Amino acid sequence: MNSILETILTRRSIRSFSDKQISKEDLQTIVQAGIYAPSGKNQQSWKFTVIQKPEVIEKLAAAVKQALQAEHYDFYCPNALILLSNDRNNSNGLADCACALENIFLMAKELEIGSCWINQLKDTSDNPEVRTLLTDFKIPSSHIVWGVAALGYAKEQPQPKPRKEGTVHYIL
Amino acid sequence: MNSILETILTRRSIRSFSDKQISKEDLQTIVQAGIYAPSGKNQQSWKFTVIQKPEVIEKLAAAVKQALQAEHYDFYCPNALILLSNDRNNSNGLADCACALENIFLMAKELEIGSCWINQLKDTSDNPEVRTLLTDFKIPSSHIVWGVAALGYAKEQPQPKPRKEGTVHYIL
Repeated sequence: MNSILETILTRRSIRSFSDKQISKEDLQTIVQAGIYAPSGKNQQSWKFTVIQKPEVIEKLAAAVKQALQAEHYDFYCPNALILLSNDRNNSNGLADCACALENIFLMAKELEIGSCWINQLKDTSDNPEVRTLLTDFKIPSSHIVWGVAALGYAKEQPQPKPRKEGTVHYIL
Repeated sequence: MNSILETILTRRSIRSFSDKQISKEDLQTIVQAGIYAPSGKNQQSWKFTVIQKPEVIEKLAAAVKQALQAEHYDFYCPNALILLSNDRNNSNGLADCACALENIFLMAKELEIGSCWINQLKDTSDNPEVRTLLTDFKIPSSHIVWGVAALGYAKEQPQPKPRKEGTVHYIL
């Protein structure tokens, strides 16, 4: 089997992480995979914000929890987060961030690091408490955090989920 | 160098294709990579429409050309197209399609097949002439074509483009 195909077919979203630390080198490799994603008109107007300090992750989770008025919110307690933000006026901003996140997920899998897409920043980026933290992280006020990668070593390996039938149509 | 990282770092968007036919087997492998992308809440509400008939690609290009009121439009004359559509009411529809497209691009690169993201269907899916064709392709009327992969063997290999400075910030 082709190695990329194998990585793609066996990757699963991980929502339960061990305490094991991701090395700085691995984080940098994962980020490098992200920044080499294609972007519309090659704008690269995105920002990658890599957070590994537990107290900062907790602070961000608390702000999102408040913004969502949720009872509980913790980003699945990952070892690291990568926030993918982009200029809200770039109509390709979300698509560009999604391609970069997919590269991040695949590179992490290759390094035996689990990952999951966190979606809750998309609708809370402009919440005052969340925005204050994003500004602390040097994320421009024009940016929306379109997606976040939660990263860490998996506590358990979920079983593959079946693919839906009837989603592919060939006109050959 | 890690094989996935190498594929990611060396892939470039290809906009000039030779006449060489992509085998059905390779198209199926590329599609398989796409359908194994993650999707929000594992909805998999997407559809993958693979078109290799030249006359159908031309017909779709002509409809998009008319919808855009463009002087010229040909999707870069690819050997095949994969249309990624999703339910317009799925708020993760675009992100899901973008992840699937990135898998498609990487799998194609691994098979030495060039690819490029085509963006013009996103804003023309509901144009009457375009929609008639999408309906012929069995794409539901609730779907927007969020992105299209143009695929073919590259006529030329563009040089790597540099990455922008200052897009990554570490909080470790």
